[in-house]
Amino acid sequence: MTRINNNYLKLPGSYLFSNIAKKVNEFTAANPDKKIIRLGIGDVTRPLTPTIIRSLHDAVDEMADEKTFKGYAPDLGYSFLREAIARVDYKERGCDIAPDEIFVSDGAKCDSGNIQEIFSVDNKIAVCDPVYPVYVDSNVMAGRAGDYISSEERFSNVIYMPCTEDNGFAPEFPEETPDIIYLCFPNNPTGATVNKDALQKWVDYANKNGSVIIYDAAYEAYISEDDVPHSIYECTGAKTCAIELHSFSKNAGFTGVRLGYTVIPKELERDGVKLHSLWARRHSTKYNGAPYIVQKAGKAVYSPEGQNEIKGLVGYYMKNASYILNGLKEAGFTVSGGVNAPYIWLKTPQNMTSWDFFDHLLTKANVVGTPGSGFGPHGEGYFRLTAFGSYENTVEAVDRIKKL
Amino acid sequence: MTRINNNYLKLPGSYLFSNIAKKVNEFTAANPDKKIIRLGIGDVTRPLTPTIIRSLHDAVDEMADEKTFKGYAPDLGYSFLREAIARVDYKERGCDIAPDEIFVSDGAKCDSGNIQEIFSVDNKIAVCDPVYPVYVDSNVMAGRAGDYISSEERFSNVIYMPCTEDNGFAPEFPEETPDIIYLCFPNNPTGATVNKDALQKWVDYANKNGSVIIYDAAYEAYISEDDVPHSIYECTGAKTCAIELHSFSKNAGFTGVRLGYTVIPKELERDGVKLHSLWARRHSTKYNGAPYIVQKAGKAVYSPEGQNEIKGLVGYYMKNASYILNGLKEAGFTVSGGVNAPYIWLKTPQNMTSWDFFDHLLTKANVVGTPGSGFGPHGEGYFRLTAFGSYENTVEAVDRIKKL
Repeated sequence: MTRINNNYLKLPGSYLFSNIAKKVNEFTAANPDKKIIRLGIGDVTRPLTPTIIRSLHDAVDEMADEKTFKGYAPDLGYSFLREAIARVDYKERGCDIAPDEIFVSDGAKCDSGNIQEIFSVDNKIAVCDPVYPVYVDSNVMAGRAGDYISSEERFSNVIYMPCTEDNGFAPEFPEETPDIIYLCFPNNPTGATVNKDALQKWVDYANKNGSVIIYDAAYEAYISEDDVPHSIYECTGAKTCAIELHSFSKNAGFTGVRLGYTVIPKELERDGVKLHSLWARRHSTKYNGAPYIVQKAGKAVYSPEGQNEIKGLVGYYMKNASYILNGLKEAGFTVSGGVNAPYIWLKTPQNMTSWDFFDHLLTKANVVGTPGSGFGPHGEGYFRLTAFGSYENTVEAVDRIKKL
Repeated sequence: MTRINNNYLKLPGSYLFSNIAKKVNEFTAANPDKKIIRLGIGDVTRPLTPTIIRSLHDAVDEMADEKTFKGYAPDLGYSFLREAIARVDYKERGCDIAPDEIFVSDGAKCDSGNIQEIFSVDNKIAVCDPVYPVYVDSNVMAGRAGDYISSEERFSNVIYMPCTEDNGFAPEFPEETPDIIYLCFPNNPTGATVNKDALQKWVDYANKNGSVIIYDAAYEAYISEDDVPHSIYECTGAKTCAIELHSFSKNAGFTGVRLGYTVIPKELERDGVKLHSLWARRHSTKYNGAPYIVQKAGKAVYSPEGQNEIKGLVGYYMKNASYILNGLKEAGFTVSGGVNAPYIWLKTPQNMTSWDFFDHLLTKANVVGTPGSGFGPHGEGYFRLTAFGSYENTVEAVDRIKKL
């Protein structure tokens, strides 16, 4: 008799964004005349840029000709892409990462969900609170998170590192030493970052304790301040303690194109085993590479034209971020983020719960945001708005919120 | 201190096809003048067909325009694709599968590796022997396979169902009742199939014992005989015991495009929980959908023109299969497969081991095949050749083998 993985049943309710989609669908079904503005899920809205479109068409044409047709990709990604990543994202920033330390994938969500597999089930994880839900949920499914304590809205075997107004939304070293530490800077959902000195302290802490940091750099393209690191490998010693995750979704608008990569330095060992070998084994056994045409598009991102165009994309969204940040400040909200990240993190007014404010905003302003409590217990009483809408919609949404 | 997942260390050597690639690379480096013909890995060589290329270009153009740009796909796949699959692959074959029982993914390799996650670690799996290595390897990584017994080349906690000449390469019910049964027909690597009556017996067996069948139908497009089922859902009662995996790689040439799907009927429950809900949860937590442009190409496969074109592709490869099958028979080899599958399964001559024959063929005929032992202990003494080369190369390879 087949038994199911009971760990799945420990997850409370369904995935945050599925829940939001359901609520919005119900509202629009009941109110078909209302124009909903979505500043909820972190999904981009600008079209792909000309250089990327050209490279996609070229790659499609290659697939039409037997001389240039491509079947299975190399397990870990095409060299042309891994070399471009190593050069632009690392070498030009003074980080020493080799192309064969880079694993190309179909996106950072898969990688951030799957990376825990290479670790023993008895490791204890630490996460920022609030944070992107995939880190905790994927560990729950693997049986690493313990049981859900519903009165506290937390899992019994997860170390939560509160990121609140009091500490400037930056995590502090927890009382209990974690085995695996998930860090995400610029943070989703708070938009907060840490400077290089602060990140160096985390690297030193991990090296001292033999912990591994899983560093999610999905939003690094949005960093505007000089002392905020774009990669954890800017810190001394990071290659013996850190794995870094990257996405093409937010910088190049690839949410529907699907491309990401993970860096595992060859020096990074635990139990005498290179984590690089374990992840390579996972890739070659359970994954078959990102599509050739998508990897070609990824390469185009690193061309001079591509780099220029994606700066334009990021600039477009950051103009939205400024508009939201300033507009909500004017309206009397307590807000943060929006400077090094496309997310604005606001305190709900009148001590409303996050979901109450969600309903309030949906029904009164027809604006969709994301309840902070969906990102962890310390997200309660907060709310996330994203800068990924069109400028016109963003302006309209902020104006509607101001009038509430 | 972080601990690794020790189950990974139980895997002997690296993944079969990575090993082959290494050996071939070494040989070509030492013999740059030799023309290698690859009939090893099951990778297609024909270009994508015109209807698919057109749909890819159209979808790329949609991504260039803000009015038609697509971000994140729906968790479980676009309706346009799921509806086309339900209609052509199921309804037109008399199978009652709804679009929302279909989960679109980036390929059957990922799905066949990941599907075990929704089951408890204490389930016992059964596999055909020989078979596609991902089923066993992914269960080893999850800790479900026990330890590797190197003297027997098998895992202690896996039920191997020998598929040999004696039983016509069709598995028999094992002595011990498995919880999860992996079946792959047409089989990779033997190319063998079972008829509908035989498959019905497996469905009845699973329903009687409460087991779940994971049915890999990756090669169904190659079936040429009438009494061989294309889907397990052609059997009565399969919806309460079977999950089915499909690939676009082998019928439409998508090995480098990446698209597949998994069917989990809503009736399929264990421990009172719908497996459909568990897999939906996995998708929404750890996966972000196949690229829009690839899903559009998938839809084009189901258009009348697309269907016609992929029949041409399959016909091309099956002509190769016939050439290999007949050529090797003439040369005195004992061969099977090649009628309902693009694989030819041959007995190594003079009791050579599979890897010895691999080296023999590589060095003497410069032809790459796949050692049967890489697919399980009962694959020892066998060898797989694929029909996925060009016709010219296939003819040349067979002629070279004949001259050995």
